[in-house]
Amino acid sequence: MTPEEFRQAGHALIDWIADYRSDLEQRPVRAQVKPGEVSASFAVGAPQAPQSAEHILAELETKIVPGITQVQHPMHFGWFPSNASLASTLGDIASSGLATLGISWESCPAATELEQVVCDWMRQLTGLSDNWQGCIHDTASTACLTALLLARERASEFSQNRGGLQGEPQALIVYTTDEAHSSVVKAALLAGFGEHNLRRVAMDPHSRSMLAPCLAQQISDDIKAGFSPAAVVASIGSTGVTAIDPLAEIAGIATQYGLWLHVDAAMAGSAMLLPECRHLWQGVEAADSISWNPHKWMGTILDCSLMYVRDVEHLVRVMSTNPSYLRSTVDDEVRQYRDWGIPLGRRFRALKLWYQLSIDGVEAIQNRLRRDLANARWLADQVKQTPEWQVLAPVSLQTVCIRHQPRGLHGEALDRHTLAWVQAINQSGAAFMSPSLLDGRWMVRVSIGVEATTRAHVEALWQLLQQQAGKALNTPIDVKNQ
Amino acid sequence: MTPEEFRQAGHALIDWIADYRSDLEQRPVRAQVKPGEVSASFAVGAPQAPQSAEHILAELETKIVPGITQVQHPMHFGWFPSNASLASTLGDIASSGLATLGISWESCPAATELEQVVCDWMRQLTGLSDNWQGCIHDTASTACLTALLLARERASEFSQNRGGLQGEPQALIVYTTDEAHSSVVKAALLAGFGEHNLRRVAMDPHSRSMLAPCLAQQISDDIKAGFSPAAVVASIGSTGVTAIDPLAEIAGIATQYGLWLHVDAAMAGSAMLLPECRHLWQGVEAADSISWNPHKWMGTILDCSLMYVRDVEHLVRVMSTNPSYLRSTVDDEVRQYRDWGIPLGRRFRALKLWYQLSIDGVEAIQNRLRRDLANARWLADQVKQTPEWQVLAPVSLQTVCIRHQPRGLHGEALDRHTLAWVQAINQSGAAFMSPSLLDGRWMVRVSIGVEATTRAHVEALWQLLQQQAGKALNTPIDVKNQ
Repeated sequence: MTPEEFRQAGHALIDWIADYRSDLEQRPVRAQVKPGEVSASFAVGAPQAPQSAEHILAELETKIVPGITQVQHPMHFGWFPSNASLASTLGDIASSGLATLGISWESCPAATELEQVVCDWMRQLTGLSDNWQGCIHDTASTACLTALLLARERASEFSQNRGGLQGEPQALIVYTTDEAHSSVVKAALLAGFGEHNLRRVAMDPHSRSMLAPCLAQQISDDIKAGFSPAAVVASIGSTGVTAIDPLAEIAGIATQYGLWLHVDAAMAGSAMLLPECRHLWQGVEAADSISWNPHKWMGTILDCSLMYVRDVEHLVRVMSTNPSYLRSTVDDEVRQYRDWGIPLGRRFRALKLWYQLSIDGVEAIQNRLRRDLANARWLADQVKQTPEWQVLAPVSLQTVCIRHQPRGLHGEALDRHTLAWVQAINQSGAAFMSPSLLDGRWMVRVSIGVEATTRAHVEALWQLLQQQAGKALNTPIDVKNQ
Repeated sequence: MTPEEFRQAGHALIDWIADYRSDLEQRPVRAQVKPGEVSASFAVGAPQAPQSAEHILAELETKIVPGITQVQHPMHFGWFPSNASLASTLGDIASSGLATLGISWESCPAATELEQVVCDWMRQLTGLSDNWQGCIHDTASTACLTALLLARERASEFSQNRGGLQGEPQALIVYTTDEAHSSVVKAALLAGFGEHNLRRVAMDPHSRSMLAPCLAQQISDDIKAGFSPAAVVASIGSTGVTAIDPLAEIAGIATQYGLWLHVDAAMAGSAMLLPECRHLWQGVEAADSISWNPHKWMGTILDCSLMYVRDVEHLVRVMSTNPSYLRSTVDDEVRQYRDWGIPLGRRFRALKLWYQLSIDGVEAIQNRLRRDLANARWLADQVKQTPEWQVLAPVSLQTVCIRHQPRGLHGEALDRHTLAWVQAINQSGAAFMSPSLLDGRWMVRVSIGVEATTRAHVEALWQLLQQQAGKALNTPIDVKNQ
């Protein structure tokens, strides 16, 4: 494809994207395709003859779009907001256009230095002190794995330079709660700690926050039993119910026992752009690492997960490689982000943050976050005021966990009812929410915060919820786990 | 930013990108900025007032572009080709425009299923049997880490479900060579094996290929010493000198001793699109995992690294998570790519492969690869035929390792001379190559294969090499390690 062919096809694609983003609301929220339907629409082998960009754009519309669950749709209340603001989308397109190679400072000084700049901007905007230095990972899963590797190597005094975890006399222990994101357990297992060395600390039954005294007790018990406590992962805004672990207390305990404290604020980090929310992670300055995702609520297009550490020297010592073909004369003066994470090659992700902050501006982003918080409070109030409806967890931010429980409906019958009404809504394409388990029973998470979602959409959702829950009661259907 | 504002700014950006890609040859290859120069051009804090997209585009040109080493430039011969074909760039832009969320099949069925489709197309195009199933990672570093985690869990019979590596009675051992990419050592250390349990198998001194009998001997010795051999990583086309490990022999040994065999063909995988090159990885069918990067020589825009495994059940068992908020009614019928790697959230990367294969077509890609192989052979011939110039390693593919060694120049004096001429060229911006260590002495890697590089560019490079080497001899400069 020549630059002139690219120019022509690029203009067509931009027009198509602008139309697509304008008309999103007309499409069903959840993809309506069946398993295998998208793949069956493609040939078994790669196309033999070159095809025109027009043809591919037509196939994008007919074959790909029906297979997309529209997370930018204003009636999307599932999982978590996965906003891709158009300003950050433009920055992502610039990144594709520049087609840089990020393997060292020398391979693209601008990618390294703009990442330093925007990570520092975000540090300031979330009220963190200048003790923190940041980088961009793909996801909080990767950041959490990195954090636990840092913890492992600090606690074992660099076992990687000896026999690895295989040579350690005392088992290293990781602490978290059952409410922590699944990626925390995954990270601990991949880092080699092992399921038996992972402690789920007891939680407050209502807020599902870690009980700090139980953490202290568990650590003390483990030490007595000959184990070596290494790390604690605290959730600030869990995915399930937005649980907020008591960070200041946990940090005190972590400091006392020398544990690495990683703060997983994947969803809630966006709220820290609002000074009035920062009490939620009070104590964060005493942590060792923090990660959160601008690619969620804040609206930077996926993938963009920030990770901050205080001890950069330790980070680089654990994660670095320095092959001769990557050395340059200025190595002592520059940052090498390849030594901050797992991948060597990195896209120019800083551009999308720069574009979003510059074009949308911080104030507009803050206003939108405040709008979403108010919408969540409004919905929670409606639910609480309505008979047979319940809000099941504190509404710390923008997620409202609800259940419709008519008199006499309990246990599995209640589960069937919950799944029936939420599945009916999700299947209809009118709105989308995530059913989730809470203490073994299904509930529905209404995660508010799509950029396009206004109060009117939340009001429409509340009408829909009541209609469908009533309808499901009258016409019970047999559903599988939704 | 509204869709209409996006439309306008998007058209301007597309025009800018088309011009930028057209005029690349006018720019210096290596970025001419000094450390800190790019970051100093930005404000210390995020911009307070929103800025126009025009303003940001102007800053992209004035502040960012000077800080880019132009890896799409036809005179870029550094590191490895990092081609970003315009067709794949267009696909990457489509991915940004669609702004999908890849956390489960349900969140974007099309992203999952198109990834299955293009991974299978690539499998067929590289001559692999249908025993293999693939996915897209960001980089070969991540794929290698994943492979060693799979090896660790197979060899330890799922130690992650018990005490992790901490509870294993016998140390697990990983085998590779000193010629393997730095990411192999990094992966082994991050996976917890430990430096002491990493064996560098002896190599043929000229080809730097692993000596299979030495691997067998080392494994046998380790078993006698009470260790537990777990994995071997074979390089097909190493980054340094394109070394090709003897895969069939290694596979035989791996099978005999039950080791996981991972094939790192990050650069050379592209060559497997050419049937005449497939002898280079003969024996690959007996491996357990393979990774290679279409985002290198083949020309899919970064990031796009393919990883294939034969035992998907094992892969998913090691890497899976299944939190309730991600479950759906069709989980038994669909693939969940989150269980194939580390990150939960994934971009829609399959689009860029689909665009490239469809718009450019396989034949054009194959022709370009063959052109590059011929250009490398041509350059190697010139070097060999010229007094005082040497080709230092077999030219297996498109990388030519060279040195200019005038009579009487040895040791550190030779190093100073090599670094002087390559640094003079790199600093001039006229061309760029990577100096690299070979047996402790500097040499220069000429990595041919940028999409825009024609025979005329390689001829121009050869003239430049001879001029600068001659000039450096007459005016020695004091250089630091380049």
